[in-house]
Amino acid sequence: MSAAATGRATAERPIADLSRLSLNTATTKAWTLEQAVEGAVRAGLPALGLWRDRVAEAGLEQAATLVRDAGLRVSSLCRGGFLTAADDAGIAAALEDNRAAIVEAATIGTRELVMVVGGLPAATGPNSPASADADRDLVAARQRVEDRISELAPFAEEHGVRIVLEALHPIFAADRAVLSTLGQCLDMAEPFPAQTVGVVVDTYHVWWDPDLRRQIARAGETGRLASYQVCDWNLPLADDPLLSRGFMGDGFIDFPTITRWVAETGYAGDVEVEIFNQQIWDAPGDETIATMAERYTRLVQPYL
Amino acid sequence: MSAAATGRATAERPIADLSRLSLNTATTKAWTLEQAVEGAVRAGLPALGLWRDRVAEAGLEQAATLVRDAGLRVSSLCRGGFLTAADDAGIAAALEDNRAAIVEAATIGTRELVMVVGGLPAATGPNSPASADADRDLVAARQRVEDRISELAPFAEEHGVRIVLEALHPIFAADRAVLSTLGQCLDMAEPFPAQTVGVVVDTYHVWWDPDLRRQIARAGETGRLASYQVCDWNLPLADDPLLSRGFMGDGFIDFPTITRWVAETGYAGDVEVEIFNQQIWDAPGDETIATMAERYTRLVQPYL
Repeated sequence: MSAAATGRATAERPIADLSRLSLNTATTKAWTLEQAVEGAVRAGLPALGLWRDRVAEAGLEQAATLVRDAGLRVSSLCRGGFLTAADDAGIAAALEDNRAAIVEAATIGTRELVMVVGGLPAATGPNSPASADADRDLVAARQRVEDRISELAPFAEEHGVRIVLEALHPIFAADRAVLSTLGQCLDMAEPFPAQTVGVVVDTYHVWWDPDLRRQIARAGETGRLASYQVCDWNLPLADDPLLSRGFMGDGFIDFPTITRWVAETGYAGDVEVEIFNQQIWDAPGDETIATMAERYTRLVQPYL
Repeated sequence: MSAAATGRATAERPIADLSRLSLNTATTKAWTLEQAVEGAVRAGLPALGLWRDRVAEAGLEQAATLVRDAGLRVSSLCRGGFLTAADDAGIAAALEDNRAAIVEAATIGTRELVMVVGGLPAATGPNSPASADADRDLVAARQRVEDRISELAPFAEEHGVRIVLEALHPIFAADRAVLSTLGQCLDMAEPFPAQTVGVVVDTYHVWWDPDLRRQIARAGETGRLASYQVCDWNLPLADDPLLSRGFMGDGFIDFPTITRWVAETGYAGDVEVEIFNQQIWDAPGDETIATMAERYTRLVQPYL
């Protein structure tokens, strides 16, 4: 009798348990929200992580209905943030956009709004040269993020939404996010209630951190672990380093170990797969989901 | 009367004080050791940071004579390391190579041997794909580095040489160095005497670290701050990210702030400029030194 027939897993062919696997819509970038919903349902996935662009295309109310009617959970909304502007107009625009994102999260049916907090004022664009005379004061930029979070927290709380701070890999500290470690995110979250400001562990961004185990435990103890996102650190880096994310198993990350650390906290939420990678984007979505489910089943789920 | 004539600096044209500026020979890669010695002397620099390849080309004893006769200090020797091998042959080879590097440092006239500790066993080369089945255990790789340092420390002490642990930017954690933060290096150094195991602050690698000020202070307090290396974090990243290092001022790093933190420790050593950048390597060496001295004089020296 085969392992599948007996219901027992083998090392070669574990029984798929996808009950916590969430497809982030960035992974199947070519798909509309409707296609992503259908694809997730076809593959037996219970949840989606949504990007705001896909939600906006579909229309917010329609998107909420679409996902709800399909019986899917929304594991997170990506993304708010870009809070480092130093000028009044930039600050006002950032607050307005983030209040909109908070309303969108509540409407679409998730508590968790992931925040990419923005880079230095000297940044002229993603992976682009520094502006010659602009501000390189990293300490001050981080303080502005903290100030904006303070201003947004009451609004988030009113709407039952959590601001989820994302540490981005230090490769992005200049141009995309001045929050670089999980510990730093937890320090920033500390003054706020756990249900209002949380953190996400995204393996791509934090796998290298010598303090990772301790900070994951701290996120768990403080009730702030809002999301676990998995994808691999691939080399060589893509021309746009943001697109170097890969399927679990294709890069250098030790998923069993990090997943065990997450599981030790008692984290019971979904595991989102969020991959930016041109080659994967060019492949058929169903194929992408199949590979992602296979890798998850082998490298992540057994350690949850 | 001009500012230069009065001996007073202006914001536009500070008086050059190059008395602590060291040229790392990697910055003028096209030059032989002899050319680098002559170039440094021509520019009025007091010190060189040496790479082992340039020393080997010249011959160890000849290199020592050459540098000493020119009246130059040797601020550091780069580099030992690559200590993460897990197999007996790899461990033995690493120990042998690092003992040779320790002898070279003592002979060439520096106490400071900079160590790039090596990446994961799964690394197949710099910026290269992961080996499918090889070891991704980052925790174990870091432990092996600690074990090798323990084995090398007595030999270094006998030779009056300090093992200088270098945290590399987390972009290199997979393929080049599993030490990623200054705090981690200081933790690893702690069991050893300060004159035997130290750390280097290389702005390119650590500028993003939210804990940087505190760890620089700790390096100072514990007497382990062995070297201060400066160059900038340029974007876009080069195809080989190692070559994205730039002249101070061309990228995103806040040199006045970090230099003040280093100065607050009482650090009185040389400031090495170590830049890997193809465009700079293609330029005439004297021009490179002139630009480096101008940037140092404007962005680093006033804050020392």
